[in-house]
Amino acid sequence: MTNTYDVIVIGAGISGLSAAKLLKSHGLNPVVLEARERVGGRTFTVRNKETKWVDLGGAYIGPTQNRILRLAKEYNIKTYKVNEQENLVHYVNGKSYPFKGSFPPMWNPFVLMDFINLWRTIDEMGKEIPREAPWRAPHAEEWDHMTMQQLFEKICWTSTVRNFGKLFVNVNVTSEPHEVSALWFLWYVKQCGGTMRIFSTSNGGQERKFVGGSGQISECMAKELGDGVKLQSPVYRIDQTGDMVVVETLDKQTYMAKYVIVATPPGLNLKMHFNPELPPLRNQLIHRVPMGSVIKCMVYYKENFWRKKGYCGSMVIEEEGAPIGLTLDDTKPDGSVPAIMGLRLQDRSNPNCLCVLRLKMICEIYSRVLGSDEALHPVHYEEKNWCEEEYSGGCYTAYFPPGILTQYGRVLREPVGRLYFAGTETATEWSGYMEGAVQAGERAAREVRAPAMGKIHQSQIWQTEPQSVEVPALPFVTTFWERNLPSVGGFLKFMGVSTFLSAAAAAGLLAYKKGLLPRC
Amino acid sequence: MTNTYDVIVIGAGISGLSAAKLLKSHGLNPVVLEARERVGGRTFTVRNKETKWVDLGGAYIGPTQNRILRLAKEYNIKTYKVNEQENLVHYVNGKSYPFKGSFPPMWNPFVLMDFINLWRTIDEMGKEIPREAPWRAPHAEEWDHMTMQQLFEKICWTSTVRNFGKLFVNVNVTSEPHEVSALWFLWYVKQCGGTMRIFSTSNGGQERKFVGGSGQISECMAKELGDGVKLQSPVYRIDQTGDMVVVETLDKQTYMAKYVIVATPPGLNLKMHFNPELPPLRNQLIHRVPMGSVIKCMVYYKENFWRKKGYCGSMVIEEEGAPIGLTLDDTKPDGSVPAIMGLRLQDRSNPNCLCVLRLKMICEIYSRVLGSDEALHPVHYEEKNWCEEEYSGGCYTAYFPPGILTQYGRVLREPVGRLYFAGTETATEWSGYMEGAVQAGERAAREVRAPAMGKIHQSQIWQTEPQSVEVPALPFVTTFWERNLPSVGGFLKFMGVSTFLSAAAAAGLLAYKKGLLPRC
Repeated sequence: MTNTYDVIVIGAGISGLSAAKLLKSHGLNPVVLEARERVGGRTFTVRNKETKWVDLGGAYIGPTQNRILRLAKEYNIKTYKVNEQENLVHYVNGKSYPFKGSFPPMWNPFVLMDFINLWRTIDEMGKEIPREAPWRAPHAEEWDHMTMQQLFEKICWTSTVRNFGKLFVNVNVTSEPHEVSALWFLWYVKQCGGTMRIFSTSNGGQERKFVGGSGQISECMAKELGDGVKLQSPVYRIDQTGDMVVVETLDKQTYMAKYVIVATPPGLNLKMHFNPELPPLRNQLIHRVPMGSVIKCMVYYKENFWRKKGYCGSMVIEEEGAPIGLTLDDTKPDGSVPAIMGLRLQDRSNPNCLCVLRLKMICEIYSRVLGSDEALHPVHYEEKNWCEEEYSGGCYTAYFPPGILTQYGRVLREPVGRLYFAGTETATEWSGYMEGAVQAGERAAREVRAPAMGKIHQSQIWQTEPQSVEVPALPFVTTFWERNLPSVGGFLKFMGVSTFLSAAAAAGLLAYKKGLLPRC
Repeated sequence: MTNTYDVIVIGAGISGLSAAKLLKSHGLNPVVLEARERVGGRTFTVRNKETKWVDLGGAYIGPTQNRILRLAKEYNIKTYKVNEQENLVHYVNGKSYPFKGSFPPMWNPFVLMDFINLWRTIDEMGKEIPREAPWRAPHAEEWDHMTMQQLFEKICWTSTVRNFGKLFVNVNVTSEPHEVSALWFLWYVKQCGGTMRIFSTSNGGQERKFVGGSGQISECMAKELGDGVKLQSPVYRIDQTGDMVVVETLDKQTYMAKYVIVATPPGLNLKMHFNPELPPLRNQLIHRVPMGSVIKCMVYYKENFWRKKGYCGSMVIEEEGAPIGLTLDDTKPDGSVPAIMGLRLQDRSNPNCLCVLRLKMICEIYSRVLGSDEALHPVHYEEKNWCEEEYSGGCYTAYFPPGILTQYGRVLREPVGRLYFAGTETATEWSGYMEGAVQAGERAAREVRAPAMGKIHQSQIWQTEPQSVEVPALPFVTTFWERNLPSVGGFLKFMGVSTFLSAAAAAGLLAYKKGLLPRC
């Protein structure tokens, strides 16, 4: 029968393709079933004359993301640095503050203490959380029962820092602090390497992009797999009751294999009807892990006017109702096609806002932040609303509402019969990123080869990755003050104690002088 | 073509069937497509010699649930009162406290103040929330950004009351206080008629059961619809691109109709592949509304030993890790088949706990609570773990995690092209119950008839229901103390002020006596 394969992989995103690639390299015959008419999943490179090419989905890579860098190198896809030469700009309370570095500086000493304490606390809490099993953290239940909003309320003394915390959650996981479990978010930041690594452009998750677009990675893998990739083949049924697993697609094809790797976001398992039914925990997990809500908005200009004004194009925008929270320069590495990439949380209260209207609002805020009328005159616009994608469900990644990670997390990548689970959500390093997709896909492929097929040993399923030579990771050096500045709470306590001590000493001295103390 | 109908209804639960029934009564030709091999959805009556019949799903009805009572009356299905003649029992801190009434009494005056204040506050917050549009409540955003756990932390002064609040959430919505939005839970309680109505047996949501089981309602409707109900027909595809909506089922059948009513829990929309894709908000909503987690456990005994000890069979059990939180007598109305019904939240950390082990643990807690060894000797056991059901996703109903109701609630029953939405989750009275299922099903049927077919006027879509003659609702009379006892906070404030005033008065008197006050 022609539709019989060694392994069926569901989903031709980076995770599914890298699983199939690894299987094929070991002489197996996998087939990849993809719902869409394209490969790439949450990466999506569009080519046209206005943009040359543009990444409307996942785009950024950086140091410590060694697996995706290895894949790119294999296909001779080069990276380039996102422009961060000039000043970044932090827009808050209607004013623009240029700065250098990863985080905007804070001038008010109380705010500064509070700000430094926030990052230090998030990173220190992260240290307690095992990246492969966050539900085993010593305070797992306590932190999982809390939203990030609650955690900010506990940690932060100033509204400036709380607001910035909200932006930090918005930008990193495209959801709101009150929606996500604190344990999950702390785990997420930790498994990306901490607050500095996840948020930085230089030396962080947004350091680079691929010349020609991230979509090439999937395209190259798909090319390698040849007619082992079937497009427009959404899977709607998985039957494990016989000798072979039987998989049916909307185009009325039936595929059979000994094993299946499901490489979709966990919530999209729901698109399939299972026989036998999934076990109770997985059946409920997949209803509990929604995808973030983001629209990626690319505004194109005739000229790179911001650089002339001393801005690199990175904007951190804090304004109630602002259409964009974070931007990066998206000009091509040769300086052509000047553009600014902006991330927007889905405006859920106004989902039907017209594209042209959105562009207008975006240009207006850019104009205010950059202090330039040129921002009002774009020459082209591209956007992608990931919330409308049936076969992603949203972007960038799944988030865990409070209470779910401790109760259901352990079944996230637990095989079900002959089904194995890939997808960036199941990764333990840079989960939510292209890097995590590769880690998860290759791990799932090795799971099929190891306990299932007996080709490799159980201990070889999880593998570390050597560091990329071209994109090495630098350590983040914390300053004396970052390590030692007290929190506002700590400071006030200290001040309280020292005031008390000074007062007591003064009173003692006075008493002594007045002869009120017994002299022994 | 034989597979062409006026309306396709997806789901043969009470909601879908009552939609089809109403359409048929107006001369239309609907077809109901059901995934399972039975009708009834989240109601499920099993018949066997040990139990005669047993409701392993939705079972209870009570006053103000007039639609489901009307349906039952039409089919001559009688109701009977759940036994509440003898004492209820509240088990807390390892001791049993018999009581009468809806809520256990609290003896510590501080706890009592706190307890009364909790219910009063929940009901008063509920008054602000429009049942048809909770997202329009004046404090909608604030309350939606909070979990019920946060709300308890704000309202409750004593851990006794906080713990009881947890039980109240567990029992009513089979989820945890830290998992659910406060706005959503407050709405849920409100649209059931308040804390007393939702929690009470007599005069409340658990007053009665159907003689012969709740499954009969669906069975009777299905009988009426004849071969218009197709079992084992899970829908996997809905195509709205042509003149007719085309619906495909796993058994390779194709159905066509002008309109479709989707009568599944919202999250189960994900089982279908849509062409065109759902709009962004609905596409994301259906990933954000998980179903509760409950196992219904029925223990059968030779004798009704609890009644002899003066207990009616209702137990409110507060114990860390207790296998059951709430029980009710499930003896047949003629006194035969003595049984106790217990509700258990899915033990997610131990999902593979064997059925026999679970029974043993349940009998042990019953034995402790009722102070009787007879509880240790069941003669039969039935249980249903709803978490394992692919085509329910859980029970009783969908819950909203923090942030979802205000952002996505408005599309819950908003038609998408020629798709209309029923299911108890879309109801505005007793949503989550059989009553809500009927309200939603009939409303969706009228939506199809009205704007769609032009048969009735828009204003006739939502209809009120006359009160059942047989099961009238009594008002809940609150006592003077329930209305006027201060909260602990209010009391302390009052005490603080009066202490200050007394102290000030005493100091004034003293000063006067000592001649320290200037005499004018």
